[in-house]
Amino acid sequence: MRKDIADALKLNMAVVREGYEKQAFADNGNRFLTGNGYMGIRGTLTEARKADMPCVNLAGIHHRKGNEWMEPLNAPNPLYFALEGYSLPENADKVVSHTLSLDMLHGFFLRETVFDTGIGHLTLRVQRFCHMQDVHLLAARIWLCSDTEMDLKVHMGIDRDVWDIHGPHFSAFETEDSGECTVLLGLTDDGQQVASALHFPPVCAASSGEMRSAAVHLFAKEAYTLDLVSSVFTSKDTPLPSQSALDALNTCPAFDALLTSHKALWASLWEKTQVEISGDKDAELAMRNAIYHLLSIAPRHASDLSVAARGLSGQTYKGAIFWDTEMFMLDFYLACLPEVARSCLNYRIQSLPGALEKAKAYGLEGAFYAWESVEGGKDACSDYNVTDVFTGRPMRTFFRDKQVHITADIVYGLRKYVAWTGDTGMLAQGGARVVYEAARFYLSLITRRLLSDTYDLLDVIGPDEYHERVNNNAYTNEMARMTLSYAADICPKYLDIPEEEIRLFREAASHLKVQAPDPETGVIAQFDGYLALEDVSVETVRSRLLDPKEYWGGAYGVASHTQVIKQADVIALLEVLPGYDRGIKEKNYDYYEKRTEHGSSLSACMYALCACDIGRPEAAYPLFMKSAQADIAGGGKQWAGLVYIGGTHPAAAGGAYMVLTRGFLGLTWENGEPQLHPRLPAAWERVRLKVQRDGKTYMLDTEEA
Amino acid sequence: MRKDIADALKLNMAVVREGYEKQAFADNGNRFLTGNGYMGIRGTLTEARKADMPCVNLAGIHHRKGNEWMEPLNAPNPLYFALEGYSLPENADKVVSHTLSLDMLHGFFLRETVFDTGIGHLTLRVQRFCHMQDVHLLAARIWLCSDTEMDLKVHMGIDRDVWDIHGPHFSAFETEDSGECTVLLGLTDDGQQVASALHFPPVCAASSGEMRSAAVHLFAKEAYTLDLVSSVFTSKDTPLPSQSALDALNTCPAFDALLTSHKALWASLWEKTQVEISGDKDAELAMRNAIYHLLSIAPRHASDLSVAARGLSGQTYKGAIFWDTEMFMLDFYLACLPEVARSCLNYRIQSLPGALEKAKAYGLEGAFYAWESVEGGKDACSDYNVTDVFTGRPMRTFFRDKQVHITADIVYGLRKYVAWTGDTGMLAQGGARVVYEAARFYLSLITRRLLSDTYDLLDVIGPDEYHERVNNNAYTNEMARMTLSYAADICPKYLDIPEEEIRLFREAASHLKVQAPDPETGVIAQFDGYLALEDVSVETVRSRLLDPKEYWGGAYGVASHTQVIKQADVIALLEVLPGYDRGIKEKNYDYYEKRTEHGSSLSACMYALCACDIGRPEAAYPLFMKSAQADIAGGGKQWAGLVYIGGTHPAAAGGAYMVLTRGFLGLTWENGEPQLHPRLPAAWERVRLKVQRDGKTYMLDTEEA
Repeated sequence: MRKDIADALKLNMAVVREGYEKQAFADNGNRFLTGNGYMGIRGTLTEARKADMPCVNLAGIHHRKGNEWMEPLNAPNPLYFALEGYSLPENADKVVSHTLSLDMLHGFFLRETVFDTGIGHLTLRVQRFCHMQDVHLLAARIWLCSDTEMDLKVHMGIDRDVWDIHGPHFSAFETEDSGECTVLLGLTDDGQQVASALHFPPVCAASSGEMRSAAVHLFAKEAYTLDLVSSVFTSKDTPLPSQSALDALNTCPAFDALLTSHKALWASLWEKTQVEISGDKDAELAMRNAIYHLLSIAPRHASDLSVAARGLSGQTYKGAIFWDTEMFMLDFYLACLPEVARSCLNYRIQSLPGALEKAKAYGLEGAFYAWESVEGGKDACSDYNVTDVFTGRPMRTFFRDKQVHITADIVYGLRKYVAWTGDTGMLAQGGARVVYEAARFYLSLITRRLLSDTYDLLDVIGPDEYHERVNNNAYTNEMARMTLSYAADICPKYLDIPEEEIRLFREAASHLKVQAPDPETGVIAQFDGYLALEDVSVETVRSRLLDPKEYWGGAYGVASHTQVIKQADVIALLEVLPGYDRGIKEKNYDYYEKRTEHGSSLSACMYALCACDIGRPEAAYPLFMKSAQADIAGGGKQWAGLVYIGGTHPAAAGGAYMVLTRGFLGLTWENGEPQLHPRLPAAWERVRLKVQRDGKTYMLDTEEA
Repeated sequence: MRKDIADALKLNMAVVREGYEKQAFADNGNRFLTGNGYMGIRGTLTEARKADMPCVNLAGIHHRKGNEWMEPLNAPNPLYFALEGYSLPENADKVVSHTLSLDMLHGFFLRETVFDTGIGHLTLRVQRFCHMQDVHLLAARIWLCSDTEMDLKVHMGIDRDVWDIHGPHFSAFETEDSGECTVLLGLTDDGQQVASALHFPPVCAASSGEMRSAAVHLFAKEAYTLDLVSSVFTSKDTPLPSQSALDALNTCPAFDALLTSHKALWASLWEKTQVEISGDKDAELAMRNAIYHLLSIAPRHASDLSVAARGLSGQTYKGAIFWDTEMFMLDFYLACLPEVARSCLNYRIQSLPGALEKAKAYGLEGAFYAWESVEGGKDACSDYNVTDVFTGRPMRTFFRDKQVHITADIVYGLRKYVAWTGDTGMLAQGGARVVYEAARFYLSLITRRLLSDTYDLLDVIGPDEYHERVNNNAYTNEMARMTLSYAADICPKYLDIPEEEIRLFREAASHLKVQAPDPETGVIAQFDGYLALEDVSVETVRSRLLDPKEYWGGAYGVASHTQVIKQADVIALLEVLPGYDRGIKEKNYDYYEKRTEHGSSLSACMYALCACDIGRPEAAYPLFMKSAQADIAGGGKQWAGLVYIGGTHPAAAGGAYMVLTRGFLGLTWENGEPQLHPRLPAAWERVRLKVQRDGKTYMLDTEEA
């Protein structure tokens, strides 16, 4: 394992943190995440118990405990391993050195800790991974070496005391011992099952049960290794998850063979997207880290699964699918794993019934997609998402019921997928129905005043969530208009729709209010009345906080009645839809950038794209880095009161990818061929990057542009 | 003065409070208010300074200090009078007895305090009134008597240290001495002037200036009297207020003659409305007190002045005109002082330009009347009306911009005035224009969804202010429909309006969403989605308060997301508009009554009316008494943090009058003649009451019903 990480380091494909800090567990859990699209393992130590938030987070399986938020299940942790007397954080005083590494080249988590034994040094190394090919498998190799002969007691097994945010979700457990293998089945009160199985190493042969202990004798300076191989299956995968988990262990190859196939798959993934940024190793590493995370959570194994807003890093944001996927991650998947893009959009097609039902529940027609989508398109978003720091009461928020741009965002993703892949089959196989129902949704939502020819979308929330219940949000109106027009264009080809309805789509598209640029300033109002709000700086608004944790938005937040916004809104519009010229982008960038808190990880990349478009790559650079480094840097908003809201930031990662390609490289497609119009930061000498399209691989290279 | 109060007591027309309590000054200021429509004097002691909130509150003249709320001016207090060594609260330890009385029969404030002088008793009596005929005059007689001979020092004059809520409003003063008379002119920074003049009694001849002192020698058991006569004029009345104030004093009759004419006018007013409730002296007194207050604040001297929501009891609610006048007080004025009803509605006609301007400012057409109307129809209501008790921050409220029923309420008042008086001249002279612009307002506000034939009034606040920004509030929709229909009916007779517009009025009226009674329960939803809100009791909601002063409404208030409401809303609708049968009233009364906090003094009377309509006078009785006794009982919500929000409750008084007449007496008019359908509380033996209509006086008498 030392050679692997050395290679990765040499190739600028490793993230390393030296030194032990007890409080770093939350950040490190995200920073050193390994995953394979089916599951993700937070980068916690193998001996971590609940308080340090270890988790084997599963994609696409949710449970709701009582009236709590619904959230994805974490499997019982089958890779628990602890050295008695040499565990962290308990034995932190014995730590001589401690290094965590993420080997992005091979998809490994690595940990090396040297402990002071009193008479010498004991080294513990762990190499852990989610198998990239057989996504039900996860494994760890433990490597021990002491410079003096010593006896150790080790504990390992399947930890049923699962870390959950709104759990516990398992109300019962069943175990089954099958010789060297044990399976632990967690059962939820709604009949769901998750089985974690572990193949114990021979040293445990003497004991039984899901948690086992063993005595290990170390000879001086002789390495001792232990291999743990485990598997996870759920009742979504198979009717008998326990059996499948045991079968998987009984038939799987030995550890070294698993390693080989895992590395081969990672190699093939990197092969598709090799990125080099000469002249800026930090940017290169950050961009590769962003891509690493996008690859680690891509549901390559599925045909109708999407990617959650916090990837597979835990239960934050309920493991739900947000607009993040279509609006921020899709570019990357299209260019590198188009089958994953397809799976994400298939998920939306499959979950149309949930969207139809949601619209109906609000007295509307068509498809009102979930703001936080879980199985079947059910909306996991509750009406109360923020806790008032002053009263401790839940605050009524309107993300679920008013953030109506979500439906258009999905249409946008579909349209982009079809345009990129030419795969109109997706339209024929449900996509056109989604587009039609999306247009119906807006048609049913749009109002007109009796005395006006202008149609309105009233009482909405745009991407900037700090301003609730606004009228004619520019982004929302234009995305709805795009949806109506696209529906009018493509639906008649696939569906039998009355002409009158198509006429209505077009009429609504042409009458829906345009937030036109102000003739003098060129500024597009974010919504009706926005420009009349108090015009103060982000710093002034920040200085009004009475509590550093209080919510800036809502009815009475410090930003709510000012022009200070959370994230790109008008700027997002200018970057996702065509037709805005450089002058307008420039004026709106200059107006909105200084009024934006960037309180969402989705903000910086949109501004960076815009900065590139107006010829300011140096202004774009820090915004790009903020996006690309989101999961290296750590920090950010991790806690809302006592609730953990941290995790990885795949949308920021996808956003960084957009900035690199569409922004710095100025990538466009002309006659099916990529064209670069580079506008690189001064320090960047050359960028090379692979993209796939229509089965062909293109090596983009700024030296050849 | 002792005979007068004895008469009043005998006739059950006096309110008396015995004993001195320092903290009672706020309640007593309202309870013992005297007024004449031009001004009101709070029932404070003559020696009261700022902290005890004395005021000579003026009708129809406002000033705004800096960015504070606009509020009516209080004149410099010209009836300041103090006995050195025998002043309250300073010398409370010397009080032997203390009695305050309101002589409603003659319109006097009376105070008698007996002080212990150490060697005997000193009695101070004060009789004070606002002259009912010459409304610029106010006067006080001071009566002193000691049972031992003694010397006293007295101080009197015009107190320029005016009590204000959001003042001080006078930025400069000018004084002018003219022999026995002195005038003090207060000047605001926007050029307004208020002059208070005082005719000093001869004992002050030796001194000069606006505040004078004098030595008084009392012989044992010999009464000593001092008369103070003063006058108030403003720059709204005359270009030279100081001169007018002095002239008024120089030409006015002597104190006794003033007393006589004042009493005669009160007698003539009582003659119009004599009310007797045999069998229930408390109810009789309460009803008379309600009428007393309505008479004291009636702008009999003016032709286009209205009545403020807190009458003339101070600056609370900015001295502004609310819907209270048209919806709660109008019945009384129509039946007793129709010229006052006319003045109130003329005020709305005169202030139409302000309403047109307000609509325009919101991008709407027609007349959007001010929620808190001051001169010219300007809206004194700010966007921030409530202070968050947890953060001390102002909370954005929507009374100003969303409580759109105000325009229909005014049309309702106009329609009622015309129907009662037959005075269609008011329609010809501006009234029809108001109705037309009101209908235009709703037409511009109403929206329709593209896929629906139903029109909506979205994003409004109904009478129940706890639920903000709701859709299709039943009360608002029906009042808007009434407005549109009434406009279609009457406007063509007075105005040249295109037929197309009339057609639009009718179309909007017929398509506007009806909150139809639920077919099973008969309950009318207060607004879209109301019945799906959390259904908990008022007590449960109250138990959730973290701070007794916190606001129940707004975005996150304890009531906001429940079915608990502040005040009559659906029930108000059922009582103000015809066409709801007894069954519907019964079902909605039973549903809503227990969900109503009655957090507004406008609530109880509507429920009482409804209770009478469904044959439950005993249920109506406590609600009636709550309304009628509002200004005797005192208490209620008097402070919002450090801001005084107390005052008299003329709308509750008017509401009590409605309950008595329309409710308990079941008064209707058939062929121009009053018909009674009494449903009296069991204890009530007989009710007699005078009403005027068409120049005729009718003595309603339940014994003749």
